[in-house]
Amino acid sequence: MSVTAPQGFRAAGVVAGLKDSGARDLALVVNDGPSRAAAAVFTRNRVKAAPVLWSEQVIKGRRVRAVVLNSGGANACTGPAGFQDTHATAETVAEAIQDSAGEIMVCSTGLIGERLPMDKLLPGVAVAAAGLSRTDGGLAAADAIRTTDSVAKIAFRQGAGGYMIGAMAKGAGMLAPSLATMLAVVTTDADLDAVALDRALRSATAVTLDRLDSDGCMSTNDTVLLMASGAAGVTPDEAEFTELLTDVCADLTRQLLVDAEGASKAITIEVVGAASDFDAVTVGRSIARNNLLKCAIHGEDPNWGRVLSAVGTTEAVFDPDEINVAINGVWVCRNGSFGDDRDKVDLRPRDVTITVDLSAGPNSATVWTTDLTADYVHENSAYST
Amino acid sequence: MSVTAPQGFRAAGVVAGLKDSGARDLALVVNDGPSRAAAAVFTRNRVKAAPVLWSEQVIKGRRVRAVVLNSGGANACTGPAGFQDTHATAETVAEAIQDSAGEIMVCSTGLIGERLPMDKLLPGVAVAAAGLSRTDGGLAAADAIRTTDSVAKIAFRQGAGGYMIGAMAKGAGMLAPSLATMLAVVTTDADLDAVALDRALRSATAVTLDRLDSDGCMSTNDTVLLMASGAAGVTPDEAEFTELLTDVCADLTRQLLVDAEGASKAITIEVVGAASDFDAVTVGRSIARNNLLKCAIHGEDPNWGRVLSAVGTTEAVFDPDEINVAINGVWVCRNGSFGDDRDKVDLRPRDVTITVDLSAGPNSATVWTTDLTADYVHENSAYST
Repeated sequence: MSVTAPQGFRAAGVVAGLKDSGARDLALVVNDGPSRAAAAVFTRNRVKAAPVLWSEQVIKGRRVRAVVLNSGGANACTGPAGFQDTHATAETVAEAIQDSAGEIMVCSTGLIGERLPMDKLLPGVAVAAAGLSRTDGGLAAADAIRTTDSVAKIAFRQGAGGYMIGAMAKGAGMLAPSLATMLAVVTTDADLDAVALDRALRSATAVTLDRLDSDGCMSTNDTVLLMASGAAGVTPDEAEFTELLTDVCADLTRQLLVDAEGASKAITIEVVGAASDFDAVTVGRSIARNNLLKCAIHGEDPNWGRVLSAVGTTEAVFDPDEINVAINGVWVCRNGSFGDDRDKVDLRPRDVTITVDLSAGPNSATVWTTDLTADYVHENSAYST
Repeated sequence: MSVTAPQGFRAAGVVAGLKDSGARDLALVVNDGPSRAAAAVFTRNRVKAAPVLWSEQVIKGRRVRAVVLNSGGANACTGPAGFQDTHATAETVAEAIQDSAGEIMVCSTGLIGERLPMDKLLPGVAVAAAGLSRTDGGLAAADAIRTTDSVAKIAFRQGAGGYMIGAMAKGAGMLAPSLATMLAVVTTDADLDAVALDRALRSATAVTLDRLDSDGCMSTNDTVLLMASGAAGVTPDEAEFTELLTDVCADLTRQLLVDAEGASKAITIEVVGAASDFDAVTVGRSIARNNLLKCAIHGEDPNWGRVLSAVGTTEAVFDPDEINVAINGVWVCRNGSFGDDRDKVDLRPRDVTITVDLSAGPNSATVWTTDLTADYVHENSAYST
């Protein structure tokens, strides 16, 4: 059901012809209300794709009627003409559903630096608008936003009082947000205003989608959009809604992690004993981005020295002689030196947990990453060819 | 000749038995004076190996009689016992050459987190001391400090008035200094005091060894040591000496770049039009550390969008719509959008140059890196096994 699990939403996923493969490449999600309250977070990359520049303006109005998403081209680094293409896309959607372009979000994903084939995209919008459906559209839309994703990513949950949250996401590489990450659309039929939605979305993504760092690279297009239709007629407690939303985002995060390009391991990095949350996240990200460690985990080598080496590059509060590191539960490093026998570490399972205890305070954070593999190199060497 | 090209130096490289392969693994370089003036730069990693902690103390005295270096073990994350091992190594050298341990530098390289086999290392020191030689020792020492280096790295130059600078270095992975990088010993028979040597060394390494960033990972052991014997009886102009030293360090940098683990491309990143030197270096490093771009170059794909994506993650001064990018001389990105035909870019040669014009000022910097390959993954997956 994905984004159409909540009441008040219709969606479509169609073949516009942007992808040479002939796969679905255009998705449309429409909020039929009664509410149009919305919130969004975007990439912090200063080089922003045209659809991000457009959508940042749209979300200032705190109302979104529909979002149109395309794979097969990022429409990034395409200059003023690229922005006009985004504008024309929004106008075409507006015309098709008889609404205002100012409430139409646009998201694009794919190769940077090429214009979109508008002669294919705009007719695709009309086809999508004509095929909008609550029953069939959710899965088709989730399928249409895939790039190198091997599977579509969807999630949904029911909240107290019967309201729903639904979601779809794409993203299998270049996951390193610092704010948002990848394309994700989350819908709900709860009735919450845009300010509450914004608080809930920032809170939820900060500890889920924003903590997934597959290769340290930050996209030009990352967008996470939350739309509320209010169709369930339920106004949930904000804390309870935030918790459910966090659960949905965590579910998407897990799906993105497991499907990351070329990865053979899903690595959870738990940083505990930090002097601040900021320190914990900083240390977690530094470990997540250490190529040598990611290679070692790929080789099933519990090379904890590379963990310490990554910790040492940060400004976090710690004493090198008081750091402890466990890999899959074995404390291979105690007090900054060798601890339990590294041969006891079983790195054969796909899931790997690295725990770092900084012994510097009560704070903690979890960051997720993947190993670095020859398959990753292969997939990313050949992406645009 | 390497470090023994200048007068006043003897060296040795021997098999102590630290490496299972039976290759040379212990080097000793002795300065016979008359001067003992010295300067050094070290890793900025806050997790420092025992020999770095020791050598940082030694260099405070501004005099170095000898440096002992071992491959086959980094002696990092080995606690107080590891520091005692370093101390014992210096004492053993001091005893063998009848001098003070307080003027003996120690460098180690290899796997982190394991004690060195001192029962092999200390006898090796005695063998090295007995075999010190000006004629044969330089190359043997350069050979002994290799880890995964496929070749020994040496350089030497003659300065005005007949003085010499000689050098050796190791480092084929984990090159990302922020200050120094890898192990390097540079010698000269010029007569300069330690303060002048320190200025010259910091100036030279800042634009050479410090600008080489193969994988973004910062070692626990990086050390660059400069020792002056004064044996040539020449006191060169400091600017001229600095220039010659920079030339030697650039030579080593090039050798390290070409021999980086698993690399198939040597990538020069030139950042021009920056508002400051700091901005230029920051942008250069961000590009050098972008795994997706490094994969693209490996695949001979002129994916300039990944260059812009990397630039956009920095805080440097620029307008996204004014950035220009050339790859091997073809301006594939103009004003933040597509420029000349990317098919004109020939990425078949090993040497690749990426030029980024930020259009924000008069400053520039060059950073060197390598591509990301399946061989890199393979070598670093299996390093400790």
